[in-house]
Amino acid sequence: MAEEPPYTSALLDAGVASFMGADQVDPFDEDELEAADIDVGIAGFPWDSTCISRTGTNRGPRAIRDASTQTRYYHFEYDTDLRDHYTITDCGDVPVIPGNAAESLRRGTELLSNVIGAGAIPVMLGGDHTTTVSGVRALAEHADDPALVLIDTHFDTAQEIAGERYNHCCPLARAIDEADFDPENISIIGLTGPTNPRHELEFSLEQGINLYTLDEVVQRGAVPVAEDAVEAATEGSDAVYLTVDIDVLDAGAAPGTGVPTNGGLLSRELLQILAVVASNGIDAMDVVETSPQLDPAGVTPRMAVRTVVDCLAANALEEPNAIGMGTRATANCSPDD
Amino acid sequence: MAEEPPYTSALLDAGVASFMGADQVDPFDEDELEAADIDVGIAGFPWDSTCISRTGTNRGPRAIRDASTQTRYYHFEYDTDLRDHYTITDCGDVPVIPGNAAESLRRGTELLSNVIGAGAIPVMLGGDHTTTVSGVRALAEHADDPALVLIDTHFDTAQEIAGERYNHCCPLARAIDEADFDPENISIIGLTGPTNPRHELEFSLEQGINLYTLDEVVQRGAVPVAEDAVEAATEGSDAVYLTVDIDVLDAGAAPGTGVPTNGGLLSRELLQILAVVASNGIDAMDVVETSPQLDPAGVTPRMAVRTVVDCLAANALEEPNAIGMGTRATANCSPDD
Amino acid sequence: MAEEPPYTSALLDAGVASFMGADQVDPFDEDELEAADIDVGIAGFPWDSTCISRTGTNRGPRAIRDASTQTRYYHFEYDTDLRDHYTITDCGDVPVIPGNAAESLRRGTELLSNVIGAGAIPVMLGGDHTTTVSGVRALAEHADDPALVLIDTHFDTAQEIAGERYNHCCPLARAIDEADFDPENISIIGLTGPTNPRHELEFSLEQGINLYTLDEVVQRGAVPVAEDAVEAATEGSDAVYLTVDIDVLDAGAAPGTGVPTNGGLLSRELLQILAVVASNGIDAMDVVETSPQLDPAGVTPRMAVRTVVDCLAANALEEPNAIGMGTRATANCSPDD
Amino acid sequence: MAEEPPYTSALLDAGVASFMGADQVDPFDEDELEAADIDVGIAGFPWDSTCISRTGTNRGPRAIRDASTQTRYYHFEYDTDLRDHYTITDCGDVPVIPGNAAESLRRGTELLSNVIGAGAIPVMLGGDHTTTVSGVRALAEHADDPALVLIDTHFDTAQEIAGERYNHCCPLARAIDEADFDPENISIIGLTGPTNPRHELEFSLEQGINLYTLDEVVQRGAVPVAEDAVEAATEGSDAVYLTVDIDVLDAGAAPGTGVPTNGGLLSRELLQILAVVASNGIDAMDVVETSPQLDPAGVTPRMAVRTVVDCLAANALEEPNAIGMGTRATANCSPDD
Amino acid sequence: MAEEPPYTSALLDAGVASFMGADQVDPFDEDELEAADIDVGIAGFPWDSTCISRTGTNRGPRAIRDASTQTRYYHFEYDTDLRDHYTITDCGDVPVIPGNAAESLRRGTELLSNVIGAGAIPVMLGGDHTTTVSGVRALAEHADDPALVLIDTHFDTAQEIAGERYNHCCPLARAIDEADFDPENISIIGLTGPTNPRHELEFSLEQGINLYTLDEVVQRGAVPVAEDAVEAATEGSDAVYLTVDIDVLDAGAAPGTGVPTNGGLLSRELLQILAVVASNGIDAMDVVETSPQLDPAGVTPRMAVRTVVDCLAANALEEPNAIGMGTRATANCSPDD
Amino acid sequence: MAEEPPYTSALLDAGVASFMGADQVDPFDEDELEAADIDVGIAGFPWDSTCISRTGTNRGPRAIRDASTQTRYYHFEYDTDLRDHYTITDCGDVPVIPGNAAESLRRGTELLSNVIGAGAIPVMLGGDHTTTVSGVRALAEHADDPALVLIDTHFDTAQEIAGERYNHCCPLARAIDEADFDPENISIIGLTGPTNPRHELEFSLEQGINLYTLDEVVQRGAVPVAEDAVEAATEGSDAVYLTVDIDVLDAGAAPGTGVPTNGGLLSRELLQILAVVASNGIDAMDVVETSPQLDPAGVTPRMAVRTVVDCLAANALEEPNAIGMGTRATANCSPDD
Repeated sequence: MAEEPPYTSALLDAGVASFMGADQVDPFDEDELEAADIDVGIAGFPWDSTCISRTGTNRGPRAIRDASTQTRYYHFEYDTDLRDHYTITDCGDVPVIPGNAAESLRRGTELLSNVIGAGAIPVMLGGDHTTTVSGVRALAEHADDPALVLIDTHFDTAQEIAGERYNHCCPLARAIDEADFDPENISIIGLTGPTNPRHELEFSLEQGINLYTLDEVVQRGAVPVAEDAVEAATEGSDAVYLTVDIDVLDAGAAPGTGVPTNGGLLSRELLQILAVVASNGIDAMDVVETSPQLDPAGVTPRMAVRTVVDCLAANALEEPNAIGMGTRATANCSPDD
Repeated sequence: MAEEPPYTSALLDAGVASFMGADQVDPFDEDELEAADIDVGIAGFPWDSTCISRTGTNRGPRAIRDASTQTRYYHFEYDTDLRDHYTITDCGDVPVIPGNAAESLRRGTELLSNVIGAGAIPVMLGGDHTTTVSGVRALAEHADDPALVLIDTHFDTAQEIAGERYNHCCPLARAIDEADFDPENISIIGLTGPTNPRHELEFSLEQGINLYTLDEVVQRGAVPVAEDAVEAATEGSDAVYLTVDIDVLDAGAAPGTGVPTNGGLLSRELLQILAVVASNGIDAMDVVETSPQLDPAGVTPRMAVRTVVDCLAANALEEPNAIGMGTRATANCSPDD
Repeated sequence: MAEEPPYTSALLDAGVASFMGADQVDPFDEDELEAADIDVGIAGFPWDSTCISRTGTNRGPRAIRDASTQTRYYHFEYDTDLRDHYTITDCGDVPVIPGNAAESLRRGTELLSNVIGAGAIPVMLGGDHTTTVSGVRALAEHADDPALVLIDTHFDTAQEIAGERYNHCCPLARAIDEADFDPENISIIGLTGPTNPRHELEFSLEQGINLYTLDEVVQRGAVPVAEDAVEAATEGSDAVYLTVDIDVLDAGAAPGTGVPTNGGLLSRELLQILAVVASNGIDAMDVVETSPQLDPAGVTPRMAVRTVVDCLAANALEEPNAIGMGTRATANCSPDD
Repeated sequence: MAEEPPYTSALLDAGVASFMGADQVDPFDEDELEAADIDVGIAGFPWDSTCISRTGTNRGPRAIRDASTQTRYYHFEYDTDLRDHYTITDCGDVPVIPGNAAESLRRGTELLSNVIGAGAIPVMLGGDHTTTVSGVRALAEHADDPALVLIDTHFDTAQEIAGERYNHCCPLARAIDEADFDPENISIIGLTGPTNPRHELEFSLEQGINLYTLDEVVQRGAVPVAEDAVEAATEGSDAVYLTVDIDVLDAGAAPGTGVPTNGGLLSRELLQILAVVASNGIDAMDVVETSPQLDPAGVTPRMAVRTVVDCLAANALEEPNAIGMGTRATANCSPDD
Repeated sequence: MAEEPPYTSALLDAGVASFMGADQVDPFDEDELEAADIDVGIAGFPWDSTCISRTGTNRGPRAIRDASTQTRYYHFEYDTDLRDHYTITDCGDVPVIPGNAAESLRRGTELLSNVIGAGAIPVMLGGDHTTTVSGVRALAEHADDPALVLIDTHFDTAQEIAGERYNHCCPLARAIDEADFDPENISIIGLTGPTNPRHELEFSLEQGINLYTLDEVVQRGAVPVAEDAVEAATEGSDAVYLTVDIDVLDAGAAPGTGVPTNGGLLSRELLQILAVVASNGIDAMDVVETSPQLDPAGVTPRMAVRTVVDCLAANALEEPNAIGMGTRATANCSPDD
Repeated sequence: MAEEPPYTSALLDAGVASFMGADQVDPFDEDELEAADIDVGIAGFPWDSTCISRTGTNRGPRAIRDASTQTRYYHFEYDTDLRDHYTITDCGDVPVIPGNAAESLRRGTELLSNVIGAGAIPVMLGGDHTTTVSGVRALAEHADDPALVLIDTHFDTAQEIAGERYNHCCPLARAIDEADFDPENISIIGLTGPTNPRHELEFSLEQGINLYTLDEVVQRGAVPVAEDAVEAATEGSDAVYLTVDIDVLDAGAAPGTGVPTNGGLLSRELLQILAVVASNGIDAMDVVETSPQLDPAGVTPRMAVRTVVDCLAANALEEPNAIGMGTRATANCSPDD
């Protein structure tokens, strides 16, 4: 992987924006992929043709890459340098075809499966939530009993929208019926609000999906709820897929998304949940629904970057260090305690 | 009321934006109003001529309607469909006259009073806070001892601003002297910050208005403070007016308003307060001071929609189900507990 | 059609935003459509799933309706009131299915064909340029030898994009092969810039499409070029379809579009071209590619409104009155000349 | 007047933003005003309570002052330093009362009349176009036969809007009936578009106002039309009021206004018209309808500054030097020609 | 100091925007400064030449002044009027030289030292964080053992960036080596996130700087952490410098800054920390890194104003009254408790 | 150079944004540079520390690269594919040091000189106009009698700003005294407005720089003025440097720049000037002062891309083909003429 540039040449907004300045590798070129010996493969999925609200997430990957160059590999809370654990590369974007979900998802699956096949964790940057279909399919090609943790305001379990099976309301339905995820190995954290139809609740209960409302997070705290969710999802599983819909956050913390959630998670609560889930071990992940044009300050793509970085650090150290949980940083800063 | 369109035709941003796609009815046409047999009458009040800071709230009603079409009638936290309780209609906007507060308020009063007269709850979408004058007058025409709950950063009890009785700093003064609200049946929740003059504090204390600071909300929690405020306001009253100034929220959660409050209520706290107040029963309500042009992501009009939906649900079920309070949703999602 | 509200109630941003406040009619309800006896049927097509650049045009129809309420039916340049010529109604939006172009276009075709069948001119508000496919099909159902005038930076004659026949680069290819427009009855005005591939130029020449570059407009003037284009397109035709891609305008005049054209048409030049084309008679029209979230001032949706209004006036009077051409307004203002 | 700060301290965005860094003087303090011996008095009129479209012009004066500090007193086209001709001061803002047009206009009149009484040219920065009422009244207090040149998309001659005499559609009606301007000493330049009602055209013709359409400007050119307009307006007059509605510009050149004009004047055309009018001599002026929140780049307030600076230069030199007319700058740059 | 204008003339957005409408004084004119007998001197430092991320903080001072005119001198939580404690003046801006940090900082030091020399508290409005170098130098000229409290996401202790000693990553390094602050009299509150390099942690620990992570604030609460930080910093000191980097706030609460912190402090937490620190007594302060162009709603400059006002009130009363701590306001509002 | 991706993978917003998707090469690695055998080397210069107005141009290069991926190599007006003439590569960004102009310019000079040394045309994307100093120095290292054409609103001939020799007002002064450009081989086109000080006019005349005002362009037309300017500049020269300040454009056409020019060049006029200058042959070029955060629609970075593409095409074909001049495109489209 590329050496992090010295500060001399690291003016944070300079240079071509690969994710955190990582080397680029072609994920469709097996030899190149093999040679790169990667541990993490970042892939954008610039897709929003299956979005039922405000479009714009096809610009998400580029905005996230742009924001990422202002982040460093050393993570203060985890007191570790990601480069000590991973060779991180930027695998470019899925070559999508606007309006053709089936073929675009097939290509996404191929790309992400290649990354997993090369022994790396794929980190997919959406794109609308339909893109997760490629992610779960790819993981399912390499695991027998995959689990899934969804952090989201919404169930995303619709069977179809207006007859279409591929829609950003449907990824969990597809994880179950296309990628054979056992519903009992699925947990959803953060459910809230008047955009969830009753039939999705009913379907989820019938299937045995583990459900954790935002209300429960606020009442019991993010950490214990996340611990329960992970335990429930991973029981008997051999691989974990983590998908984060950025709209789970409060609208103020993530304005750059098609359907913001007023009253959603605080950023610190999301970081705690991510820390718990990822420290348990993740094999593939995505962060979706970043719509940069709605967010002139770039708050939302920056949070997407933070999501990736925190998950990678927690996964590497196998311990959560989110703010409010007690961190290595706090221990370091209080030498005498 | 209009049937909610099936998902087939429910692309969320499609169609003429009446409030949540509700049927439209002319509130000045008694026969039409009678025939519609409505339970809730939405009315915009596109007015900002009496605003002392950044204008723009005259665009509030349209932006709120626009955002509303992304919300569904089924409310997850309350596990209920609003259409099972209400026939909701969009009564259009008050025909305001820019610069003429007296006549505009007279028209607003007429419209809202017609809605109440038709047996419905008027839900007024501001506009600046002066528009509440029409609301309180309308309710006073139909109630003997009306109570009022104001959720706001500010007292809004100024006698006049530069000699003008109609100003967005004055609605509570007019509720008392024009609509005969007993000050002891008024509660204000959320007071904070260096924009409240001492004389308004003094006036409010002299009058016996029940005052609850933001500090108290943060210290004691939103729910008990809201319970106290409702109990104090409604003692001996036969009808309740709820007015929500969106600027009571933290500036990050509601940037689209003329005078944002840094350090204001979190959205979840406001939703709790609304749940408590509305579950006690409301007869008329408004949400004011949404200024959409300041908020490219539309976070603030979306919160205005949420305010309406949550209040209607709480009022229908007569129980609060806000996040952090324990909700029907959580009970539904934990079938085994 | 609805009476234009008196100024008393005509605060320009008030009320539910149907197009110019027009009455709403259901275009799928034959009886209602019959009863309405309409002359112009406005229909939104909130679609952008087949866009290869920045999405966001699915919000176009609503933004155009919003802007339209600031326009009056009396047109100063034409010295005529549109209501003296037309019953204008708002037929709502095509019930699109995100990601399913074929079915969405089928529905659009049905809607627009119904409008034509009712004896009215359909005015379709896009949406990306793929939506024109519905328009040309609908007109073709009612005409033997339809002509088409495209005002655009781009040829829009691609056979497919990444294998997809429905894409906003392809509407003219579909007009020819799906709607049987004779290429010799097609004129394109405004071609320019480094986003036009050579193979589209070649295809257009082979087909015999009449081509007018922006260069030619600037050199010879908008009026004579438009006259040539109309003459060429309409020779032997019995109906005219006009499609206006708002990105034909200079980027400064139309920033709210996915692919702005630096150095494109001045607004006055476009208005002249529209005047010439529409005064020759139009049977159906659209204005597409308005992407409102890129344009905080709303300049672009406002121009879309102006496009519709000017075309309707020119078509009604059968004479062009655009600025720079000599107008009825100038004659009126110079009584002594 | 304040010495222009040296470049050392002239970082263009630094310091408290009085207009171009000018000294501040209290226009209600006669002694201070006398002592200042001013030639030009800048005054803001932060008012938009009588606006029928998008509000926000109450922020105009501050935005214009902010932009003004990036302009220098030396004017290249005129090859002159404004300080050689004028003592320019910033007289602050009219102390408006939101919602009370009558009293606000009275105060505006007093302020502007004081400036004229002190022997200076008042330059009023709006605010919506209603504010011109103060300007014309103030000039009428000091002139017997005042003339007026309005550069605007609109007639602004409405008798009333919804019964209100003070509205931004009415300033010319008030110039005639409140300030006794002879209609034959009034010229309007730039009329265009479907927002002008026929009755205003009829009223203007009956009154004998001199009317110049945008069409005529485009056909004949800005300079000859402006020359005709000035000649017509000033015949027999002893003082000239110039009022510039920034919405006369093309929407791309002035997006920051409530009702942008698609297809309006190019900036260079407006500068030519200003040069012709002001070089004939002006006694008072205003520039109105700047609404900065719609214009993130600040293009529109910057054009308002340019309007002021060019008019002052042309008035001082009594010759027009706008681009396209041949300027002193061109003569200076071509020493050998 | 200037009398606060009566509401009659206090339209909040009117007038030239000095800080809260305060009188202006020239800080380089000793006699004028002496005569003004000031207690607080506001000074802008419009500088961002040493910023490694998104620039734009050179517009901070003007935006903060603009926002400040919407704040009143009476502070509700503190139940006190700042004018009863202070003569506040606006000392204008440091005359910076873009690109020349050394000389710009020298001028800043002179300005701020003059203010301190005149017996006043300087309140510096940045500008990027490099500007704090002037502040600490100025205080060091007037104190023997100055202490510093930094509220920030970042250490800001870098020795240099790309060889440059003056950079917004370096102010604490310069406080130590240029202004002789004892590192043991320095506390940093709010440290978090993957933008802090390990070598700054190591340097800070070696030096004995007192470090308080955001994690600790969230775990233990803002008030006790702030109390510890103040106690640690001020032990043995004779003067306190408070520097607030607005990016310590959560990105949603302060989007208008170059490097927003996802998951940072809530505004109410920052207000509590400020209350604790300032009630202990402050001798100089700054608030830096406000970048207004990223924040169309002006949330961030408004928070900068609030920072100043709360600190002045807490310093005057020598007691903290932030929301959540129990305030005078709450006591006033609950007369019977 | 990289093959242009097929449409299949060419969704316009996908992928890492190198300029037009070109291959990346390290310009400081001689071997790599040699091996790449490049004809055009794109280099960003993300610098704005020497800007006296609104900063933000350090984000210019990345925004221009982002916009560039929506442009194709085939240029319709020129009927040529740039890849038939050039191997184009992206050489990344100059490793700038914020606040240190001298060293940053030295590095810029080295990078650009390496590109020229490799036999290629450097195309530098600013950054503020100071960055041109590197460009002219680099060309001077490889040419005996270099000429310069500046297209700009401003002279940019200041000797210093506040004592600093490196400032965006000074690049031409440095071209003369640091890079030995003969002033008589310098032409400036587009001078206008009240931001040009008289002393720069005087200096330019004394030095013999060839000056062409915007007024002259508007009066005589862009093409003949550009022809004169090129002829004057290149007489006796052996290499040409073209520098384009994007603020020469009208503010509506280029809002994303620190100091927009109201009334500046139309985009079509600039394209004509570029065509004339570049078809005469250019050896190095830059386009500077793009400040993307001011321009949500991205109009300005897109114009910067167009500037580069048009210049490269004109230089390759040695003939101008700008709109309004008669183009190959028009000839192609009119086969029968």
